[in-house]
Amino acid sequence: MCELLGMSANVPTDLCFSFKGLRERGGNTGPHKDGWGIAFYQGKGVTTFKDAMPSYQSEIAALVSHYPIKSTSVVGHVRQANRGHVALENTHPFTRELWGRYWTYAHNGQLTGYEDLPCDRFHPVGTTDSERAFCFILSELAKKYPHGPRSRKQMFSVVKKLSDRLRKLGVFNLLLSDGDFLFCYCSTKLHYITRRAPFSVARLSDIDVDIDFAKETTPNDVVTVVATMPLTCNEQWQGLLTGQACLFQAGECIKQW
Amino acid sequence: MCELLGMSANVPTDLCFSFKGLRERGGNTGPHKDGWGIAFYQGKGVTTFKDAMPSYQSEIAALVSHYPIKSTSVVGHVRQANRGHVALENTHPFTRELWGRYWTYAHNGQLTGYEDLPCDRFHPVGTTDSERAFCFILSELAKKYPHGPRSRKQMFSVVKKLSDRLRKLGVFNLLLSDGDFLFCYCSTKLHYITRRAPFSVARLSDIDVDIDFAKETTPNDVVTVVATMPLTCNEQWQGLLTGQACLFQAGECIKQW
Repeated sequence: MCELLGMSANVPTDLCFSFKGLRERGGNTGPHKDGWGIAFYQGKGVTTFKDAMPSYQSEIAALVSHYPIKSTSVVGHVRQANRGHVALENTHPFTRELWGRYWTYAHNGQLTGYEDLPCDRFHPVGTTDSERAFCFILSELAKKYPHGPRSRKQMFSVVKKLSDRLRKLGVFNLLLSDGDFLFCYCSTKLHYITRRAPFSVARLSDIDVDIDFAKETTPNDVVTVVATMPLTCNEQWQGLLTGQACLFQAGECIKQW
Repeated sequence: MCELLGMSANVPTDLCFSFKGLRERGGNTGPHKDGWGIAFYQGKGVTTFKDAMPSYQSEIAALVSHYPIKSTSVVGHVRQANRGHVALENTHPFTRELWGRYWTYAHNGQLTGYEDLPCDRFHPVGTTDSERAFCFILSELAKKYPHGPRSRKQMFSVVKKLSDRLRKLGVFNLLLSDGDFLFCYCSTKLHYITRRAPFSVARLSDIDVDIDFAKETTPNDVVTVVATMPLTCNEQWQGLLTGQACLFQAGECIKQW
């Protein structure tokens, strides 16, 4: 399978600390050695780093783990290939433009019967079940809202229903962002933590690194990190239940299903 | 204005040498300090590095200039903002998926009246004339070939005609790739060089760096590099004329208009 990493924050925040932990799971403390990727939003723009190498060994991943890219919304992934061979075009996250916004998506899980998912507007470039499911979701949204939804917040209720449909095809843990919102859907495993003042010291589970967030933040910062499994060993992460979804904006959980 | 950098090669080739030269023009030897980006294709997949900082100072650009990312098709850009403020969403190159392929585009120039270009299928995320022109080109192609063209090579004749239309709105130097093909259109300034055996030593114009391609290549390698202005000072680059276009595949110029 794979592991997911997401972030939603109310101020541009770097994710070096968390990515250091995730990176280890890409070939060292975890078996997810078949590529990795991470997308950082800045305003409506997004920049994505990815390659088909194990993140643990990737020089690009090394840069991302030490170079602070400030962002308010992040979608990341380390891959263990099941559907689709190891190749750049099969490496998450995937991005498409819809309604003049970039939508970025990463999936953990495995689907069967995904070949029949209708994708009339968006087409997969690679051969993964994941990208097909992404194109299905966006195609359905484009059909339902040809000129865009009046409320993007409400639109995510449709994404929740589509996720429920996809979960019937297998395991479907999902991160989806447009830069403003971070939508998370749990099929089997997904955890999050919201950090706010008073900040304290956090210690990674996968590598001997800790950080004192009190020194890195201001008292008004609110930062939520989402991951398949908790990335730190001394904090209380919240686990999502099967079929549960959360919508984050500016670090806060603004809607749950 | 801006500067463009493209590559087409018959074997996966890194572009570190050329990018080292281009990078200098992003704030040091050139005024193009308002962001930079470069997209590397590997098969049908593409990975893009970009940020809104001057490439000359960007740590990400430093990585790209020394870390050999092997690719057969590359589209790069350093930006001097005219239309659209300095921001990640206004940073070239731009990518969209059409017919299950990623299309990547960079533009050098400035257009007037671009706000009226029809974009029914693809929509700009940022506010540049460049991205609007890109969305116009892809929207027109999607309309003309709803299920994709029979021959992508022939399809570029349509891109040539659309480029002629755009040139009437101002300066329109263009690079466009889908990973297989690299299409180049010259409005005012565009040069290319095709390197093949016997390879020799090349020296950058913008920084005191040279390379002996004979040591870096095999005798069958064919690599074309396209740039706004020649990047080396000891080689003969070919200048394109106003309204001229070239289509490269696997390093060779396979069509000219």
